[in-house]
Amino acid sequence: MQASKRLARQQETKNRICEAAFHLYHHQGIEGVSMRTIGNLLGVSQMMSYRYFKSKNDLLIEMRARVIKHFADYLGHLASGKAKNEIKLYRILFGYLHYSEVASEDYRFAFLMNRQMMSRLNRDFATLFSSGQKNALDIHGNLIAQILNKPTSSKQVQFLTRYIWCSLHGLATSNLDSMLLGKPGYDDIKTSYIKQLLSGIIDADTLAKLRKPKDYPEMKPLVSPSENFAEPQ
Amino acid sequence: MQASKRLARQQETKNRICEAAFHLYHHQGIEGVSMRTIGNLLGVSQMMSYRYFKSKNDLLIEMRARVIKHFADYLGHLASGKAKNEIKLYRILFGYLHYSEVASEDYRFAFLMNRQMMSRLNRDFATLFSSGQKNALDIHGNLIAQILNKPTSSKQVQFLTRYIWCSLHGLATSNLDSMLLGKPGYDDIKTSYIKQLLSGIIDADTLAKLRKPKDYPEMKPLVSPSENFAEPQ
Repeated sequence: MQASKRLARQQETKNRICEAAFHLYHHQGIEGVSMRTIGNLLGVSQMMSYRYFKSKNDLLIEMRARVIKHFADYLGHLASGKAKNEIKLYRILFGYLHYSEVASEDYRFAFLMNRQMMSRLNRDFATLFSSGQKNALDIHGNLIAQILNKPTSSKQVQFLTRYIWCSLHGLATSNLDSMLLGKPGYDDIKTSYIKQLLSGIIDADTLAKLRKPKDYPEMKPLVSPSENFAEPQ
Repeated sequence: MQASKRLARQQETKNRICEAAFHLYHHQGIEGVSMRTIGNLLGVSQMMSYRYFKSKNDLLIEMRARVIKHFADYLGHLASGKAKNEIKLYRILFGYLHYSEVASEDYRFAFLMNRQMMSRLNRDFATLFSSGQKNALDIHGNLIAQILNKPTSSKQVQFLTRYIWCSLHGLATSNLDSMLLGKPGYDDIKTSYIKQLLSGIIDADTLAKLRKPKDYPEMKPLVSPSENFAEPQ
């Protein structure tokens, strides 16, 4: 077999392992994911997964990397095309919140780790997490730089990018938590919130004219049931 | 025994159960907390805790209520005294971040619940959580209302209060996560972040003159080891 074919087949197997792992995670949470249960779903021995991932922890790291990439790609998609930068930025902030709701388990999985989960993660993950997050941050940063007509490396652009990012994260998590507790979400303030965030970047006249996106591109969460597998017992 | 004395003794026992539970949680996380391990620490049967709490879940709800009250009291303390409202508001935003770092486990325990933990919580908790959170929110809300010279019920005051609250939560969690991953925290942007948050409330001249608090009142986290108990095995 050619090397390139072998590589493609390995990648394919890795994808199937991850698909099974997301399927299990969706149904049973982190405790449901194991090399054994994945082997059961794929109809192979648990050793197969170990050929690709040293441990469950390594598999979880790969899963998180995929979620973060998926998220960054989604935001990147929203920032593509020909619209004005102000419109694009506005749209990706709404897109961020949209993603956090439609793919709420993905969002929680990637960004809401508890101390125990995080302390199990290693430095490889910290690097990988930072670089994935950096891609998503850069999408905001590049737009902000262009709107302010400053280099992306400028202190102001860097600050505003982190400011927006952290604040949106706070809104997204408060919104999700509120809904989980059976209370109303934050729909009533989303638009004002985003406009307030942007008030340091986009002038008031332009801001007043911006319209909330009517729809968002379709997207399938990674943490979701797969039709290729039965529901785990 | 008089009714009032009996009540005081019951309260005292409840406090000791919670102290033991926080001690266990500090050392071993949520899995370490059980009616049995609490009974072991207190040298009594596990049935004693069941006389006060129907289940571990009820105990966890009580613990969260205590943390949220502790947090709100801390902010309330920072907002007391004779300083100008602008200075008080500035101080409690820094105090919020300070609390999230010094009592980081308390903060995570009360505000960073994962889906599994939250779905176990009942409606009683949702109400209790909202009312505890409302106390803390009101401290911000009252100051903002006074600064803007509007009623606390005004839409603008309500919005800005939630805006500040969510955004600070986003900064606090990003900061804690970053440090857990062995990366630098967000010290470099805290002051700018808080000033940016306040830019819709306090005029630029006043804002420029505000100085970061030099120190904060001492505070002992509730999630902490107690000298009354040995370290659990």
